[in-house]
Amino acid sequence: MSDADQVIETDEQDEDAYALTGKTVAAILDAVEAEDAALLTELMEPLHAADIADLLEQIDSDKRHRLIALYGKAFDGEILSELDESVREDVIAALSPEVLTEAVRELESDDVVDLIEDLEKIHQQVILEALEASDRVAVERALTFPEYSAGRLMQREVVMAPEHWSVGEAIDFMRAAEDLPEQFYHIILVDPRLRPVGHVTLGKVMSSRRQEKLADLAEPSFRTFSVTQDEEDVAYAFNQYHLISAPVVDDEGRLVGVITIDDAMIVLSEENEEDILRLAGVGPESLSDTTVQIVKQRFPWLFVNLMTAILASLVIAQFEATLAAVVALAVLMPIVASMGGNAGTQSLTVAVRALATRDLTGSNALRVIRRELVAGFLNGCVFAVLMGAIGILWFGTPMLGVVIGLAMIANLVIAGLAGILVPLTLDKVGVDPALASGVFVTTVTDVMGFFAFLGLAAVLML
Amino acid sequence: MSDADQVIETDEQDEDAYALTGKTVAAILDAVEAEDAALLTELMEPLHAADIADLLEQIDSDKRHRLIALYGKAFDGEILSELDESVREDVIAALSPEVLTEAVRELESDDVVDLIEDLEKIHQQVILEALEASDRVAVERALTFPEYSAGRLMQREVVMAPEHWSVGEAIDFMRAAEDLPEQFYHIILVDPRLRPVGHVTLGKVMSSRRQEKLADLAEPSFRTFSVTQDEEDVAYAFNQYHLISAPVVDDEGRLVGVITIDDAMIVLSEENEEDILRLAGVGPESLSDTTVQIVKQRFPWLFVNLMTAILASLVIAQFEATLAAVVALAVLMPIVASMGGNAGTQSLTVAVRALATRDLTGSNALRVIRRELVAGFLNGCVFAVLMGAIGILWFGTPMLGVVIGLAMIANLVIAGLAGILVPLTLDKVGVDPALASGVFVTTVTDVMGFFAFLGLAAVLML
Repeated sequence: MSDADQVIETDEQDEDAYALTGKTVAAILDAVEAEDAALLTELMEPLHAADIADLLEQIDSDKRHRLIALYGKAFDGEILSELDESVREDVIAALSPEVLTEAVRELESDDVVDLIEDLEKIHQQVILEALEASDRVAVERALTFPEYSAGRLMQREVVMAPEHWSVGEAIDFMRAAEDLPEQFYHIILVDPRLRPVGHVTLGKVMSSRRQEKLADLAEPSFRTFSVTQDEEDVAYAFNQYHLISAPVVDDEGRLVGVITIDDAMIVLSEENEEDILRLAGVGPESLSDTTVQIVKQRFPWLFVNLMTAILASLVIAQFEATLAAVVALAVLMPIVASMGGNAGTQSLTVAVRALATRDLTGSNALRVIRRELVAGFLNGCVFAVLMGAIGILWFGTPMLGVVIGLAMIANLVIAGLAGILVPLTLDKVGVDPALASGVFVTTVTDVMGFFAFLGLAAVLML
Repeated sequence: MSDADQVIETDEQDEDAYALTGKTVAAILDAVEAEDAALLTELMEPLHAADIADLLEQIDSDKRHRLIALYGKAFDGEILSELDESVREDVIAALSPEVLTEAVRELESDDVVDLIEDLEKIHQQVILEALEASDRVAVERALTFPEYSAGRLMQREVVMAPEHWSVGEAIDFMRAAEDLPEQFYHIILVDPRLRPVGHVTLGKVMSSRRQEKLADLAEPSFRTFSVTQDEEDVAYAFNQYHLISAPVVDDEGRLVGVITIDDAMIVLSEENEEDILRLAGVGPESLSDTTVQIVKQRFPWLFVNLMTAILASLVIAQFEATLAAVVALAVLMPIVASMGGNAGTQSLTVAVRALATRDLTGSNALRVIRRELVAGFLNGCVFAVLMGAIGILWFGTPMLGVVIGLAMIANLVIAGLAGILVPLTLDKVGVDPALASGVFVTTVTDVMGFFAFLGLAAVLML
């Protein structure tokens, strides 16, 4: 197939679906079923490594192994990089040693680090031994940096130039260089001690005369990261300042690597994913996890929820006499708690996101707390009138309407306050508010909701 | 201040906090209070436009206006681009016409489009009139593309070359060009009809000999987008295939612009943010919204929740006789519903995310449904034993333990199934599952939870 053909084929795919279509998956599985290696290779050819990884994640383990065996040597190292962790070990185990060796050798050292850091020791060893000696050293060195640090994220291959060089010198140097990185966007300017002092975009270098000084073309804003810096901070800075690439320096400020936006984008997606799942009380779960894995991952949160639900029941138990006297209370009781829980979830989600994006700070916390208080009160009043009216119409007891109305106001105010104060407090003491806010807030709204409703009923109706 | 000083200063800022510190905010507000323009300018100097935008979002409207007045001509157009929509109109209204004109003229046309597309017509006009004629035409043309389309997202400034050019020809062309874009990463190769056929990274151009053909250096994989394509699809493709920039073509396949990764990253963040907020029943809310705005935005979801809570209460009302006979049922009743709601939220969050990242497809839906069913049953059994024992110990009625245990199993199975089937169905009929799944799933778990628990009690205990 000529290059031109390939371009057109990729183009067509863009139009209707770059995500793997069901039709393609079915055709591929048919080819595996028929053990038709030639057809399989032809069907896989136009797919990007990321798509092949998705395919391997979507099919079950048995089909996955048969596909890998049939696909054989065509297996590309990049597929391993793209695979979800939960499937990665299974795929590595299924690859023949020769295919694995060749696949891993194709990868850049930072991709190998990313690939093996979460693998079991045995699998790590297999892959390290597959690497050439120089790459193995680079990977082992990267693994000495803390997990989730800039040092793990960076690539060691950098393009740098002395700060006094001209455009012409830089171009001649690059043209002569044998091992430029696959992707780079800036030339990093360094002082004689290899400390980065600025960087120049390739576009600027391209469009300038040979005799111009690189230092005069340097970008106005320039940031470096330390090898030990948290990858979350790095991703935040890339997003906030629209960085494309940024140098990484060691303790003495010397250039040791570079982080590019595609790495930062992956971290940012992961952080977002983690926040969403944590808010719902789910661990780092993926679709390819087994049933037992998800049962285990979901159990702890459900258990915590059971404890808080029992706490709420203990509150209800204090009012058994009241409930026995007015059964209508048992009918309406869940409404107050449910409304409080929902209002609390709204406030806490906004607060957790604002903390994550660093929009909620000491400078505006007080204003935001006041806003939640007033908003809770206003919505509380509206729902008090609504629900009060419904209570009266339904059960024909005016005092029941008053009780549920007042309880509604109380619980929505409490929900608003808990929704902002709980995440702020957790953040202050260094706990991820996405992880724990939900339990605290719904416990508060359940307990206070039942207490306000049944307590008011006991005082006003008995 | 020399360039070297500036580099060191930015560097230091990196170390402790690139996010605006509370100290900096306080110092800036003091300078505004003291009306010390020189001090204000000095304090603002090291801040990136994104930080200044954050600052303006964090302080209240009165301080914001005084800061803008004092800051005067130093106000940069990029700050407007970075501002949250909720504050943008307020800031634009506060700027003097001269400052606004100058600020807007600094921006590239795609940034102006992004800036004004959500503004009120009056503010749009003010900004359009501030632009030079050629830019105004470009912006007006971009606004003819559908909202949230690739056409709105792209920049019109592209660097392209005929497919038969050599590296030398490309470099000479770029060096002679007057108006190259601020940031570009590829040279796009076009055929004689201006249709893109591939692209070459600047790094490859840099490191190759002058006589080499650009076509021989083209990247192996290459994707284009149509002007009308949804920006969400574009962002997905950038993330999935690690794109840095990609050409945008019109209906005839001709090159009309280019989208770069930083634009895609912004869209991706927005989509994620939207998903998180929607899952919690919150609209596009921001911290700088007024109290009235958030009351209005949160009301509809709370109202829907009230309706579903009333539905659940209607179910409870069917069992008034049972509740009157066994008050302990009222005490334990919320536990079953609460556990079901939480388990349902876990499943649905995983499903909604998997749909968003296109990991959940027709190929694996059945397997995922079966997994949720079994996981719900397994966790249901564990909690049935736990809660059954608690019920017996607490109230001394063995049958109460049996009832709550069976209800727990039923509701956790239902929760698992609803958590996956509801998002899948909504996705199939074209409704965003993040938006509506929560209501449906918790309604199902509440209604079924109460029904299973009270129904079993009515049958087994009366």
